[in-house]
Amino acid sequence: MTQSTRIVLARRPEGRPDPSDFRTEIADLPALKDRDVLLETLYLSLDPYMRGRMSDARSYADPVQIGDVMVGATVSRVAQSRHGAWAEGDIVLSGNGWQTHAISDGTGLRKLDPKVASPSTALHVLGMTGFTAWSGLGNIGKPAQGETVVVAAASGPVGSMVGQIARLRGARAVGIAGGPEKCAYLLDELGFDAAVDHRAADFAERLAEACPDGIDVYFENVGGSVWDAVLPLLNKFARVPVCGLVAHYNDKGAGTGPDRLPATMGAVLSKSLTLRGFIMSEFMESQMPDFLKEASDWVAQGKLHWREDVVDGLEAAPEAFIGMLEGKNFGKLIVKVAEL
Amino acid sequence: MTQSTRIVLARRPEGRPDPSDFRTEIADLPALKDRDVLLETLYLSLDPYMRGRMSDARSYADPVQIGDVMVGATVSRVAQSRHGAWAEGDIVLSGNGWQTHAISDGTGLRKLDPKVASPSTALHVLGMTGFTAWSGLGNIGKPAQGETVVVAAASGPVGSMVGQIARLRGARAVGIAGGPEKCAYLLDELGFDAAVDHRAADFAERLAEACPDGIDVYFENVGGSVWDAVLPLLNKFARVPVCGLVAHYNDKGAGTGPDRLPATMGAVLSKSLTLRGFIMSEFMESQMPDFLKEASDWVAQGKLHWREDVVDGLEAAPEAFIGMLEGKNFGKLIVKVAEL
Repeated sequence: MTQSTRIVLARRPEGRPDPSDFRTEIADLPALKDRDVLLETLYLSLDPYMRGRMSDARSYADPVQIGDVMVGATVSRVAQSRHGAWAEGDIVLSGNGWQTHAISDGTGLRKLDPKVASPSTALHVLGMTGFTAWSGLGNIGKPAQGETVVVAAASGPVGSMVGQIARLRGARAVGIAGGPEKCAYLLDELGFDAAVDHRAADFAERLAEACPDGIDVYFENVGGSVWDAVLPLLNKFARVPVCGLVAHYNDKGAGTGPDRLPATMGAVLSKSLTLRGFIMSEFMESQMPDFLKEASDWVAQGKLHWREDVVDGLEAAPEAFIGMLEGKNFGKLIVKVAEL
Repeated sequence: MTQSTRIVLARRPEGRPDPSDFRTEIADLPALKDRDVLLETLYLSLDPYMRGRMSDARSYADPVQIGDVMVGATVSRVAQSRHGAWAEGDIVLSGNGWQTHAISDGTGLRKLDPKVASPSTALHVLGMTGFTAWSGLGNIGKPAQGETVVVAAASGPVGSMVGQIARLRGARAVGIAGGPEKCAYLLDELGFDAAVDHRAADFAERLAEACPDGIDVYFENVGGSVWDAVLPLLNKFARVPVCGLVAHYNDKGAGTGPDRLPATMGAVLSKSLTLRGFIMSEFMESQMPDFLKEASDWVAQGKLHWREDVVDGLEAAPEAFIGMLEGKNFGKLIVKVAEL
């Protein structure tokens, strides 16, 4: 009998999650039925959206129930197969969540070819975060040649793709990140045109200097004080794909004053801004094949760069996840659950 | 020699404008040059956007300078003409501002045919406010058959057109207005499907009752506390054309807390909302002819209704304007400057 070690939601966090909000369990898996496969998790993706799933506030997806396995995308190996389409040893993209093993009937699995790219890229540059950047820019941001695109959390998996795709489309990319090391990475390895450290005391002034022609597209990943610095720089008819608000995910209710809404709505009106929230699933069915083709070509041509922040062992997931919400990771956060 | 009585901006208001922010002057007009016409103002349109022009805050249009005539659309009669295209007695749509007479070289004048519709309609249902409603709904709101469209200041010239056009497009129209008289007007004369009084203590609950299927399009005219009631009712993928924020036009700086921005941005994200500011001038060149054709047909067919709130004499303009910012008018506010 196969056992799965799994991390379940023990309690809904208030504000910052605590390791005690999670609990590790060991479950006995049933025997495989006909057309089932047994999947062994190799890599687990940790992403900010998971914070939303831990809460029961209304959101775009149902919350994880107390006692349920935490959700998440995984790269897995087919350990046993009773399904004709899948062979033992196949590497697949799956959504098994925070656990070492799972049984699947094949629904939603995507086979990965390790010769095209390292399988873990299916969790970022050739996966959800890459598609999030590509579809948000393509459908909402629509940067024109020479326009200025600004993105925060720019060394992260979505932000790094936003900046690189913006440049591949002929736009100017300005990245916001925390600390000199991440800023240097944006300039030296990802090819951003400018990088601004949001921890600098004169952050707003530096952002303005980095955007002498204003901002045409602001890809909103973070919210919080970065938005206050971006707002006055937005050009007339600027587009703001709203993809994430990680600065607020640990908020415990209404913010204290002053009320920043009138300034934002006033700018929406006076500058004819477009703010558009989106979840990549909106575009997935119609556009994922186009994305995979274009992004795989870019990867093959060496035009996309990425960085993985890999932590070892499923048991390290809660601490790594909590740290990510505070910007402690550097690159796409991945838990290595088993050896490839 | 012709004299023009004119109301100029004496001082930039802080918060609510005061009658002393305006000053009346009498100016001698020069003799007509070749290709000039002398225009006598019949009607002056008073509109909320004028409050923005009184301030020097950055906005979508340049402010009125201290000592300059207040801007505004007018219906005028050609009193003298040295221009072949215009004859004495012609009635024209012009932009002469708050004054009794002006000289024009014909630029931007539109001839009005009193047989098609009363000339004052060129200041609302067949003019800027009508086009604002038509273009904001058509380009941003895009109501589908059976969707719910909500508009505030619904008895005003923009709101009343938003609701009527929404219904002509097959959508359900819910209007928000101040007081039972205005609400009855929405239902009985304009044909809205529901009307909600924003002065009611249980306004938010009543709005929810009036929108059992949520809100698909919220045409934002007002801002303020109405937005707080609308936000939780917005459906996934709802569209919010942001056309005006009259509740904030008299604000004196940042609002006091609590901070309402995180809730709005959170809803933009979780419900994939579109917020899009616009000024009708964006669409004017390309779409005004289509609007005039469609709206004139509707008027001829008796499908559009309107109400004018006419005050007598140019000297009444400042008080009427100040009252309008507080919702004291009922219908399109027009100053009758001279007899037709």
